Parts: sequence; structure tokens; C-alpha cells
Amino acid sequence: MTVSYLDNLMAALRCLPGVGPKSAQRMAYHLLQRDRVGALQLASALQKAASNVQHCSKCNNFSELEVCELCASTRRDEGQLCVVEMPADLLMIEQAQCYRGMYYVLMGRLSPLDGIGAKQLHLERLVKRVQQHPCEVILATNFTVEGDATAHYLATLLQSLGVRVSRIARGLPVGGELEQVDSGTLAQAVLERRELTV
Amino acid sequence: MTVSYLDNLMAALRCLPGVGPKSAQRMAYHLLQRDRVGALQLASALQKAASNVQHCSKCNNFSELEVCELCASTRRDEGQLCVVEMPADLLMIEQAQCYRGMYYVLMGRLSPLDGIGAKQLHLERLVKRVQQHPCEVILATNFTVEGDATAHYLATLLQSLGVRVSRIARGLPVGGELEQVDSGTLAQAVLERRELTV
Repeated sequence: MTVSYLDNLMAALRCLPGVGPKSAQRMAYHLLQRDRVGALQLASALQKAASNVQHCSKCNNFSELEVCELCASTRRDEGQLCVVEMPADLLMIEQAQCYRGMYYVLMGRLSPLDGIGAKQLHLERLVKRVQQHPCEVILATNFTVEGDATAHYLATLLQSLGVRVSRIARGLPVGGELEQVDSGTLAQAVLERRELTV
Repeated sequence: MTVSYLDNLMAALRCLPGVGPKSAQRMAYHLLQRDRVGALQLASALQKAASNVQHCSKCNNFSELEVCELCASTRRDEGQLCVVEMPADLLMIEQAQCYRGMYYVLMGRLSPLDGIGAKQLHLERLVKRVQQHPCEVILATNFTVEGDATAHYLATLLQSLGVRVSRIARGLPVGGELEQVDSGTLAQAVLERRELTV
């Protein structure tokens, strides 16, 4: 009863977040029964992305280039640096069309319970960037416990270096996540950011 | 802002059932950020499975071989042929350890609304098999409207050919699906199958 390629596929699908044994089985059957072309396209896309997508040396976002298109753009305001947790948050702010500055993507948040401290976030790169190009830092981490802690930590760290730091307005519902909110609310929160004084 | 490999990956992930734009984004970020090895393994598994997994010429289940291991086994009772809708249903019956006969996997069910009629299910292969190897046919399609219709259609068709046809007992909840039920209930339903008289 061993069908190794099929078993392998089911096992491999479980590397996707939120996919358990039943979902993996359903996905494998679906692909083999109805969408082999899609399966091959997905295989190719995975292979290419995993091999070619790196981090932008300026904003730390995913990029195929050494410096991503957004950081390379001459139309952005270098006087503002918006710090977000994840690339999805950056996309949400871009879609809200309320901000024309630069970004820094943390690729995570401080979360001691998960073993993610200041060191794991490579904050020295952010600090170095702010020291080389002085600018206002806008903290746009989530309004969750971890996001708030991250913002507080960054504010303390950056203000000690003389950097002007603000936090997007708590127009978002408390406990909410940037990814889920509508563009209008998010735009309001960016406009109403307030300067932090520790 | 175009990151083509990343965009491609997000688009390709949507070929998976139940994966929308947000899930695809989350999956892509997760793989690139935390599990590139998993992404490459998944790519390889997809490629191999899509290229190598075919259908068993006897039971129609997915198989890398011309005849799958279960059909090739000499320990199975050739006097019984259990007809199921999907490979997952076959696995559930095997796990219930109540049946030692052969299988035929329809890879679907009659569903006129989705354009799936008797022709799309290639029932002529099932008919040919039963004519070449006379046996008792046990209908184990789901107890849904489509599954019942499929069972009724098959019973009429096969009985007209003089085949003895039974249906697994309605020990399953009405409207329930084989994949969701516990092994004990399923075993009971197989044991209490009743002969159909149209």
C-alpha cells in the first residue's frame, strides 16, 4: 500500500503553515486528480523563490535584488523610516496610500517566549542605518503585546541615539493586527502618529 | 515593488484547495522566512508526484505502478469488490481493518450539477472488470445525495448484469462523509451491509 511519491507529497505539504494531515491529503489528491499543471507550476515557483529571493540590504524586505525597488526609488521621502514587523504589513501601508517614506521590515517581533530577542531581529542593522541616514522613525508594529513591547524597546533604543521616534496612532482596535484592518483606518493611524517620550 | 519570484509563488500556491490570497501570502512568507529547505522538498515532491503518480489499471486508485500493491497482493479476497468515491475513503476502510477484499475507486461521484455523469466516471472499466472477474460488489459511496445517487445508479447497472450488489449499512449519520467517521462505526457499517433489490 506504500505509494512513496504520494506519501512524500503529503508529508512535504505539511511544511505549509496551517496544513495538517487531512488538509495535506486533500491537497495532494486535488493536485493529482485535477491540477497537475498547477502542481508543476507550484514546484517551479517554490524552487525559484527559495533559490532567488533574498533580503533587501536596506529595508530587509524580501527581494531578488541587492536593493529592492522601493528602496531604490528616487520618489520616496528619505526623511521618514517606517518600521513594520512583516512584509505583509508593508504591503498594507502601501495599499493605504498614506505614506511616501522608506521602510524597515523587522521580519518578526520581540517575543521572549518564542526565543526571539533583540539579537534575533538583527536590530544593529536598523541602528546602523538610522545613524548613517538620520530620519524620523515611525513605529508601525502591531498593537499586540509583542508588537507594543517591540515598539517600546525600539523607542528606548533609538531615542537614546537622539532619533525622533513616533508610533502610528492607536486607531486600530486594541489587540488587532495590521494585516486585518481596512485601508482607511490604517491611513488614519499613520497620519495621527504621535511622538514618543519615554 | 514587483518581486516576480515571490508574486509567482503566491499565485502558484492558490492552486491548492482552500487557499486564498491571504493564505497564499502567509504561506509564501513562512516558507521564505523560516523553511526554505521545506519549500525545496515540497517542490521536488510535487514534481515527482505529478510526473510519476498514475492510476492503477485494476482499482483506479493513485499508483506509481501499473497495478498497485493492494491489487497485486495475493492475500486479498477477489470475491469482493468495494466501490468507493475517493482514495481517502479506501484508506479509511483499510484503517478500520474490517475488509480484506478488493477495491474500485471511482475518483468522484455522479454529480450532474458539476457536469459529472456516468461517462465522466469511466464506469465501463468497472463493468468490464466485474464481467471478467465475477464478485460481490459492495457500494461504499458516501451517504450524501450524490453518493446515494451514485450507489443507486451502480446498483441498477450492475444488477442488470447479474452481479450481486450490496451497500454498506447506514450506520453512518445521514449526510455524513466516510472520511470523517470513526473506525468502529465504519467497521460496523461494512459488516452490516445489506443486499440491494431494485
